[in-house]
Amino acid sequence: MTILLFLIFLAACVAAGSTGALFAPGEWYRNLRKPSWTPPSWLFSVMWTAIYLLMSWAAARVAIAEDGGLALALWALQITLNTLWTPVFFGLHRMRAGLWIILFLLATVAATTIAFLQIDLLSGILMIPYLIWVSVAACLNYAILRLNPDETTSGRGW
Amino acid sequence: MTILLFLIFLAACVAAGSTGALFAPGEWYRNLRKPSWTPPSWLFSVMWTAIYLLMSWAAARVAIAEDGGLALALWALQITLNTLWTPVFFGLHRMRAGLWIILFLLATVAATTIAFLQIDLLSGILMIPYLIWVSVAACLNYAILRLNPDETTSGRGW
Repeated sequence: MTILLFLIFLAACVAAGSTGALFAPGEWYRNLRKPSWTPPSWLFSVMWTAIYLLMSWAAARVAIAEDGGLALALWALQITLNTLWTPVFFGLHRMRAGLWIILFLLATVAATTIAFLQIDLLSGILMIPYLIWVSVAACLNYAILRLNPDETTSGRGW
Repeated sequence: MTILLFLIFLAACVAAGSTGALFAPGEWYRNLRKPSWTPPSWLFSVMWTAIYLLMSWAAARVAIAEDGGLALALWALQITLNTLWTPVFFGLHRMRAGLWIILFLLATVAATTIAFLQIDLLSGILMIPYLIWVSVAACLNYAILRLNPDETTSGRGW
């Protein structure tokens, strides 16, 4: 049962992660000014693969525990926001809308982590890398928005 | 508690539904050949609004019940696939990839409905309009793909 739950949560993560291939950072992203602390490109796929596995494992543990309803509702919200961010940022080039989405995602991941910690200590701990990585990604979204003001005021809107 | 759960699930639905505005059907979609039974445009926003409210209510009921883990895992998977479909179809114009996503979504909504029915009869019934509407949407995706073969073999790939 835990394996089945893990695979269902992982399928949701694969759907979310597929946006990284479908809406790949192309010419537009390469030409943007980026902060000096931007992580190398290869690190993103490594980190997301690890994070998706960890958050699926965490959710499967919570799903077999009692009273996991609120925690799983928050998990569902975060994976939806996770799926939304990439098409908006890399597909539409809407850096400002992307920033709002990722800040909402960060708050939801924090709430999910707290809810998981209250149900199962290990599940909460498994969410920590995700929390850290989304914080980095949110800072990166903000920095790129600030460093490329012309991109945000041009045709594509907010 | 049920209200809070309802609002969290509804927030996920709002994120999913926002793709309808962010990746609005534009010129490209208007110019595609469509089957005679295509529902009128206004019906889509009415149906989706109703469906999102019903599926959030259903999920909130399941979240306070016992043993809802599997059902909520399936709910999380379906809302992720729901979020993914619009950017792929209307954003990338990838009708064939869209068809695979919506068929996977249909199977997941069917599984979610069955899982909900086993926990709470009303929650399962609340999912029925969604199941019907995604079936219609999947048929429409397929019909448009068949009616516009040139669109699918051109530049944008599968």
